[in-house]
Amino acid sequence: MYKVFFLMIAIGFPLSVLGSLLHWPVVLLFIIYCLTIVALASFMGRATESIAIHTGPRVGGLLNATFGNAVELIIAFFALKAGLITVVLASLTGSVIGNLLLVMGLSFFIGGIKYKRQTFNVFDARHNSGLLVFAVLVAFVIPEIFSQEMEPKNTYTLSVGISIILILLYLAALYFKLVTHRGVYQTSDTENEAVEQEEAEWGKKKAILILLLATLAVAYVSESLVHTFEEVGEAFGWTELFIGVIVVAIVGNAAEHASAIIMAYKNKMDIAVEIAVGSTLQIAMFVAPLLVLISFFFEKPMSLVFTVPELIAMVTAVLLAIVISNDGETNWFEGATVLAAYFIMGIGFFLL
Amino acid sequence: MYKVFFLMIAIGFPLSVLGSLLHWPVVLLFIIYCLTIVALASFMGRATESIAIHTGPRVGGLLNATFGNAVELIIAFFALKAGLITVVLASLTGSVIGNLLLVMGLSFFIGGIKYKRQTFNVFDARHNSGLLVFAVLVAFVIPEIFSQEMEPKNTYTLSVGISIILILLYLAALYFKLVTHRGVYQTSDTENEAVEQEEAEWGKKKAILILLLATLAVAYVSESLVHTFEEVGEAFGWTELFIGVIVVAIVGNAAEHASAIIMAYKNKMDIAVEIAVGSTLQIAMFVAPLLVLISFFFEKPMSLVFTVPELIAMVTAVLLAIVISNDGETNWFEGATVLAAYFIMGIGFFLL
Amino acid sequence: MYKVFFLMIAIGFPLSVLGSLLHWPVVLLFIIYCLTIVALASFMGRATESIAIHTGPRVGGLLNATFGNAVELIIAFFALKAGLITVVLASLTGSVIGNLLLVMGLSFFIGGIKYKRQTFNVFDARHNSGLLVFAVLVAFVIPEIFSQEMEPKNTYTLSVGISIILILLYLAALYFKLVTHRGVYQTSDTENEAVEQEEAEWGKKKAILILLLATLAVAYVSESLVHTFEEVGEAFGWTELFIGVIVVAIVGNAAEHASAIIMAYKNKMDIAVEIAVGSTLQIAMFVAPLLVLISFFFEKPMSLVFTVPELIAMVTAVLLAIVISNDGETNWFEGATVLAAYFIMGIGFFLL
Repeated sequence: MYKVFFLMIAIGFPLSVLGSLLHWPVVLLFIIYCLTIVALASFMGRATESIAIHTGPRVGGLLNATFGNAVELIIAFFALKAGLITVVLASLTGSVIGNLLLVMGLSFFIGGIKYKRQTFNVFDARHNSGLLVFAVLVAFVIPEIFSQEMEPKNTYTLSVGISIILILLYLAALYFKLVTHRGVYQTSDTENEAVEQEEAEWGKKKAILILLLATLAVAYVSESLVHTFEEVGEAFGWTELFIGVIVVAIVGNAAEHASAIIMAYKNKMDIAVEIAVGSTLQIAMFVAPLLVLISFFFEKPMSLVFTVPELIAMVTAVLLAIVISNDGETNWFEGATVLAAYFIMGIGFFLL
Repeated sequence: MYKVFFLMIAIGFPLSVLGSLLHWPVVLLFIIYCLTIVALASFMGRATESIAIHTGPRVGGLLNATFGNAVELIIAFFALKAGLITVVLASLTGSVIGNLLLVMGLSFFIGGIKYKRQTFNVFDARHNSGLLVFAVLVAFVIPEIFSQEMEPKNTYTLSVGISIILILLYLAALYFKLVTHRGVYQTSDTENEAVEQEEAEWGKKKAILILLLATLAVAYVSESLVHTFEEVGEAFGWTELFIGVIVVAIVGNAAEHASAIIMAYKNKMDIAVEIAVGSTLQIAMFVAPLLVLISFFFEKPMSLVFTVPELIAMVTAVLLAIVISNDGETNWFEGATVLAAYFIMGIGFFLL
Repeated sequence: MYKVFFLMIAIGFPLSVLGSLLHWPVVLLFIIYCLTIVALASFMGRATESIAIHTGPRVGGLLNATFGNAVELIIAFFALKAGLITVVLASLTGSVIGNLLLVMGLSFFIGGIKYKRQTFNVFDARHNSGLLVFAVLVAFVIPEIFSQEMEPKNTYTLSVGISIILILLYLAALYFKLVTHRGVYQTSDTENEAVEQEEAEWGKKKAILILLLATLAVAYVSESLVHTFEEVGEAFGWTELFIGVIVVAIVGNAAEHASAIIMAYKNKMDIAVEIAVGSTLQIAMFVAPLLVLISFFFEKPMSLVFTVPELIAMVTAVLLAIVISNDGETNWFEGATVLAAYFIMGIGFFLL
């Protein structure tokens, strides 16, 4: 698996550079960029894992919490720089519904085909449910609704206020999980110990170097990628919205998607759910507000105001995910239900 | 009880035919039609039960899942044929809120007056909660919201896509319940065995014949019924919406309503809840999408786009039903709460 | 503590009278009025407690249920009389989100700093969840949505209908709790017995007299208070909405806020949650509908139609509170989450 990714980088990255210089057809470039980023993302993930093991669970948790969605953050950063606010908001939406519905749905479905009933930690699920409701139903819905009766300049002020609160609460959640309530809600200690005693794949220095190089490469390719969206959209008949919600989100999350599904197949449902929901929360409580704050330094500041279809897609995805995961138990049919919701939204965004 | 229904048919059906030919006053005809349909529906229900017992639980489950709301489907079919799309959507809404709030409310209330605390299977309740959120909060809300920013022709395409997904997931739910996870979540085996060993009231052939005849008779009367709506509305000061949401829904579901309440009174809460919620899901995941697909062959295709009041009524009904039934326990006050919600919606639709 | 409140009344009340007569600066008067009302409210609370102990739990429960939010009712009454419908609806909104988010959030947070995990009665929480969904998601949302497609005169009719249903269900809830299901869902009997055997602070007659005098004084000061809103708003740059949602709501609920937090700090989480949620339900199911009915006799009748931001704030507050309190367990982080939601809404209303 990793050899394939290594090959993809070894071939894809030079082609990315060459193709940009030689002005190859945009659709071809788009495909090369996407595959290269997916491969680089998997290396970033492995490097982060290794560093996390070296630095211990606290710093490691912090690292995962900041670098876990680095690829999306980087792509969104360059899209923001290019003034493509629509694409950025769409890709955030896509990450939320992609993680909650596509990743969780595939995990439940594929895991459920092998095992009749799978279980995961109910305490974590409920903790996460509260945060999902907070982030999506409160922090995303309020600016949407309030901005409709607000002077435009106040909308950005409100977005900044909400973004700061989101990031502070995200940090508080880490403090809660890694410091004050570490292990308090653990049900299966042995399994967790096993995870913690895992050996690092790479030495600390090597891992840091790989993380650095891969991040730089992702940044380079992402900057090129965002400039292909317009032409690719025209070529395939896709709107900016569809590219953001479906395409960018899948490219940005591909590596995580794969590991969640593998974990589900190994009956480690706790980890699969943690990847899906944890990644959603990271997007909603860290990446999205950070982009709002960063956009202050760009030409067009970005408010936390999604389109109504985006918001409704996220809100219904959250409610479905909460009701489905509420009992800490899954089966193939729950997976099918969640996947069906993703397909409905996908068709909707395609036709919009 | 059944003798009364038999008499109602023996008198009502000839009167229906005669009255249509002799052009009796429309309001009188409307009442005759409604009572005749209610009586016929009870015979269809009994016939389906008998056939289900003969064919065993799998085919029987499938039969119940398709014929359980045959009356609504037939009435809606003729309303659709007559171009009364407003009435069709309204009657679907009415079936959803009627089953979830009126039937469940009456069951909880009347059962709760006799018994201090009643319980039902929590696993089924949670399984159903997921489907309710999927069907109503995702599959009904998405086309409503997305269609507002969509070209009209795409709205029907989206509705067709969603309808196919809904029917596929409905079939998957049956496969899950009747095949892969049959009995997995059962708590009270004995009671269920007892149900399965029940003796059929009628022989297989007799039951099929009765089902066939009753269905044909319902179809005949329904076709006449839908043409009375306009004049009846004028006579009573009812809008098409009110007729659809309250009147048609109660007529179409009367037989089920009665059996759910009887079950609650006998402290068989599992069955009462299964009738109420199962019927709601059948309407939302089978009848409604089937009508969307059928409407393709009629003059006016019907999109899955409800009015905003209809949608909000269904969404809030689902959320209330989920929160109330989440703990697998009921009492008279929970019934009163759910009924109060139905009355509020009833007043709302009356004044609209 | 009580000495401070006594002093505040002994100084504040004469100053209130004097200041009104001498036309002191409005902002100064506003502050005096607010502090006096907070102090008087604490005496009303103590008097109600004492009477409740004398009259036994049933009449006492009824008393608490009607006098618990007397201060808000009185302020709202005079605001309604002055035609300030916007302020009344805003203060109702503020009481709902204030009790659910600010009070509950502070209780969870402050209690959670002292205790790692705190628990409260799950049965009560679920009972209350059902009522919150009923009151806010059904009874408040339906008139909002339906009124948009309704003739204006029907909107008030609908509001009256809903108000009567709300009050009836509120009375039914008391009957359920105090009569038919008294003690049925109790988990920790001893603690509750202890509460009931508590000795009254004041004799019955003295308590009634104090309650009467304090109520009259609150009424007097409230009537003056509502006339300061306009000028205070101008002075501080606050909208009527912000005054209603944040300022009036905090003044009207200050006494309860304090006792909920003290209870949380004493690890009596059951009582803290009961104050927060019970008070919310009292506002939504008793104070709000009562004001709608009372407004019939004033110049401008008040419909139960909130602004969209108010409604969304209440709906999301309810959903967050339900998901957070669903497991009957709290910690400091859940408190922080709920408080963060309150701050987001506060910023939103400030900027509106």
